[in-house]
Amino acid sequence: MVREPASTLLPPTSPATPAPHRLLIGRRGMVPTGANVIWKIQSGLVRSSTWGEEGDMISLGLWGPGDLIGRPLSCLDPYELECLTAVEVVAVSDPALESHESLVRSLRYTERLLSITRLRRAEAKLASLLGWIGERFGQPGATGWEIDLRRIPLTHQVIAELSGSTRVTTTRLLGEFRQAGRIHRRDRALIVRYPETLYPPARLSA
Amino acid sequence: MVREPASTLLPPTSPATPAPHRLLIGRRGMVPTGANVIWKIQSGLVRSSTWGEEGDMISLGLWGPGDLIGRPLSCLDPYELECLTAVEVVAVSDPALESHESLVRSLRYTERLLSITRLRRAEAKLASLLGWIGERFGQPGATGWEIDLRRIPLTHQVIAELSGSTRVTTTRLLGEFRQAGRIHRRDRALIVRYPETLYPPARLSA
Repeated sequence: MVREPASTLLPPTSPATPAPHRLLIGRRGMVPTGANVIWKIQSGLVRSSTWGEEGDMISLGLWGPGDLIGRPLSCLDPYELECLTAVEVVAVSDPALESHESLVRSLRYTERLLSITRLRRAEAKLASLLGWIGERFGQPGATGWEIDLRRIPLTHQVIAELSGSTRVTTTRLLGEFRQAGRIHRRDRALIVRYPETLYPPARLSA
Repeated sequence: MVREPASTLLPPTSPATPAPHRLLIGRRGMVPTGANVIWKIQSGLVRSSTWGEEGDMISLGLWGPGDLIGRPLSCLDPYELECLTAVEVVAVSDPALESHESLVRSLRYTERLLSITRLRRAEAKLASLLGWIGERFGQPGATGWEIDLRRIPLTHQVIAELSGSTRVTTTRLLGEFRQAGRIHRRDRALIVRYPETLYPPARLSA
């Protein structure tokens, strides 16, 4: 599952082609990981993954506009970058110059996903994951994060794979969350209530 | 469990104190996370962690010389940096200048730990974790990675918390690994056999 560290972290550059390489990839397509290139996402949603010991898919992250992805940022093999929507990426020609904040953000997100998947109860994993997706990809609304499902296509399967629970458990828990008012649908959006609104009113007014 | 992103990723700098801040911390001590400082480890071993929903400890990484750690690199709260040995750290005065490769390395390591803890079988987690620790902190020997346990104090508890298994399961599996010749002790070192040596000899000579 592990790949030798690349000999250099910088993508190969050629003086003859100074313009950044740009790719448009359809939904369900793959961002290339064969070459030693760091890509910056311009638009769309990408999921990074590897495979477990039984050939099962292991989600490693969910990445959107501004995020850096690519072979040099991972030591895993297989390592796949699947487009969950149509995606536009550009090759980063000099990662060292522009990538400090992006790398820090990627590190924080990966660490956060690690902490979520390590929670014991499936209910806690799901609540934590939905809050995280809301914060990262949603718009703040009056009562909760509003996630546009046209931009962020969250199937039960995708949610299950990110949280490290089964699809069956995830579907059951999403039903319970809906009944408890912790999530609801409005038009094409999923609303994830802020945790605070579940607290007793006394606490909110404090 | 989540902390607001810091307003800046750079640590506060003061022209009056140009010398890098340096700390010597004893075993079981904590690297400070109160201030917005990125630390570079000069020597020793540090474990980053947060707490789960039941107050249980969640290991997020194991960090050694050259690695960057600190509050700005995490969005988790609580976030603790425990010294597993005596540790020396220096404050990084300009992370953007020197940290690209360190950040990429941290990102790869965190992603790898995520992939390890997501494996289904405890036996696969342990094998993968021991291989990873051998690669990162061990010396390559004739038959396997040699991990100096004076420098890298791997208790069953530490191994269990990193792999996401229980201590009881970890102790049982370590016994099985020992009987199968996958690990053994020599003086103060733990030897973790390379996976290849478990293959049939025919494959090795290919």
